[in-house]
Amino acid sequence: MSLIVVGSMAFDAIETPFGKSDKIVGGAATYIAWSASNFTRPIDLISVVGGDFPQKELGLLQARGAILEGIQIKSDKKSFFWRGKYHMDMNTRDTLETQLNVLGEFEPVVPDSYQNADILMLGNLSPAVQLSVIDQLATRPKLVVLDTMNFWMETAMTDLEKVLRKVDILLVNDSEARQLSAQYSLVRAAKEIMKMGPKYLVIKKGEHGALLFSSNQVFFAPALPIDEVFDPTGAGDTFAGGFIGYLDSTKDFSFEGLKSGIVIGSAMASFCVEKFGTTRLRELSREDIDNRIKQFVELVNFDISLV
Amino acid sequence: MSLIVVGSMAFDAIETPFGKSDKIVGGAATYIAWSASNFTRPIDLISVVGGDFPQKELGLLQARGAILEGIQIKSDKKSFFWRGKYHMDMNTRDTLETQLNVLGEFEPVVPDSYQNADILMLGNLSPAVQLSVIDQLATRPKLVVLDTMNFWMETAMTDLEKVLRKVDILLVNDSEARQLSAQYSLVRAAKEIMKMGPKYLVIKKGEHGALLFSSNQVFFAPALPIDEVFDPTGAGDTFAGGFIGYLDSTKDFSFEGLKSGIVIGSAMASFCVEKFGTTRLRELSREDIDNRIKQFVELVNFDISLV
Repeated sequence: MSLIVVGSMAFDAIETPFGKSDKIVGGAATYIAWSASNFTRPIDLISVVGGDFPQKELGLLQARGAILEGIQIKSDKKSFFWRGKYHMDMNTRDTLETQLNVLGEFEPVVPDSYQNADILMLGNLSPAVQLSVIDQLATRPKLVVLDTMNFWMETAMTDLEKVLRKVDILLVNDSEARQLSAQYSLVRAAKEIMKMGPKYLVIKKGEHGALLFSSNQVFFAPALPIDEVFDPTGAGDTFAGGFIGYLDSTKDFSFEGLKSGIVIGSAMASFCVEKFGTTRLRELSREDIDNRIKQFVELVNFDISLV
Repeated sequence: MSLIVVGSMAFDAIETPFGKSDKIVGGAATYIAWSASNFTRPIDLISVVGGDFPQKELGLLQARGAILEGIQIKSDKKSFFWRGKYHMDMNTRDTLETQLNVLGEFEPVVPDSYQNADILMLGNLSPAVQLSVIDQLATRPKLVVLDTMNFWMETAMTDLEKVLRKVDILLVNDSEARQLSAQYSLVRAAKEIMKMGPKYLVIKKGEHGALLFSSNQVFFAPALPIDEVFDPTGAGDTFAGGFIGYLDSTKDFSFEGLKSGIVIGSAMASFCVEKFGTTRLRELSREDIDNRIKQFVELVNFDISLV
């Protein structure tokens, strides 16, 4: 067993300037698993759903190499639900409705068969839940990757600080990096955040790409300029899935290895935003992915001859 | 003679979250010339200043290879003056005061010795002035590069459309590209703008880097992540100066050649923002510039091995 993914599996209802979805399947673990499964299998999932979560969705994920043993199904309860509306710039959104449902009382249990993983991906969830998973692992994974959000910085900072001390890589967006560090400059924010525990920091900037920081190096991967961002929901999780899925396939956790993971994550995220929810991720062929990675190479590849 | 630069030479008074400058020397042509002179000389300047413009400044530019024959000095009048204040994000600013002075009645005259230039760089100025310079050139330069801004789109669109039909490359920022094209997506904006005349479009996104579009290719150069953007004034002009200065030195106006120019422009702009006004540009050594270009290469350089 080599990759554990912890995160929500849920329903979203999404409104963008370009359209509106019904209640569709979403959640961090869902996006991460769809994305990661292009690069590595099996994927040991840890999550909780209600009786309303479609059995068919679980079956599709299983067919993609997901192990469902760590998913709790609360038949008499409902799955987490989020309804939100994106603004024109697609980088900001309003939450219109949140129903915690099964997620409000989630107590994750790590199955024995999940022990000895190489990578633990902690998707965005309560830091207490994330901490519980870390503590249940007999051996520390070689790489622990954390996603979190501003909500936890505001409501559970003490627990979040504990989690931060136990992870190798933190993934956040630019406004979250600024909030966590109380620094406006992202370079300074990165320095402050790495003092809190993570050896590496990935700052996701949506349409403006992503930055990878170590204590003494920095790498930048652009977002692919695309005609229209149709729905950004799940793009960050899809990025994370491509990132850790690729890393699990290479086992190269050096800075150079992480750089490649960032490019793969960016490529995967660029697919996610093309259609509502996980729609686009379900259609992808290996050739689609390879072609997009080539586009990334062309996008940033240059040759300077100094005169 | 190979490079003509048209633009303002002026005074600025700047307020940023980090400090405040007195009235200091600025203007598009000033920044462009300081930046371009690292890569090519001579630089044929066309501008207008009042009697208040320091003779010493003109002497310094001359020592950097600027030809001053096309600069009109109106001894009894005052130079253009702009006072502004930047917001915390440094991408937006308020204009607090504008005194057009000599710029209000500027009628550029192209000296005979400037004819047969390879490159014409039209810095941000009234489209009527830009058009006058184009019309005075007996032979069309191989490359005509235009900078403009939202103000001219709002007040002189008919003239601006005429200029656009005569240029090869347009440089604008992201909000200007959106305004000019009435498209939110930058990919769609680029397509619309290239229908207006330019074969290439450069969209400057400040701290988020720059995009270069042709009809069927796109290239992205990031901005160097730096500890603190101290003063963004002139960064766009410094970018333009590095871009056209480098192109004048290579004479490679292909898409591949332009890509290198974009990286050089980005590197030069990253210096500009480190201190007030042109201060940092005046201190640079060739080694400083080469080191920074190496940093750019490291920032985006990656190697993907697909598994």
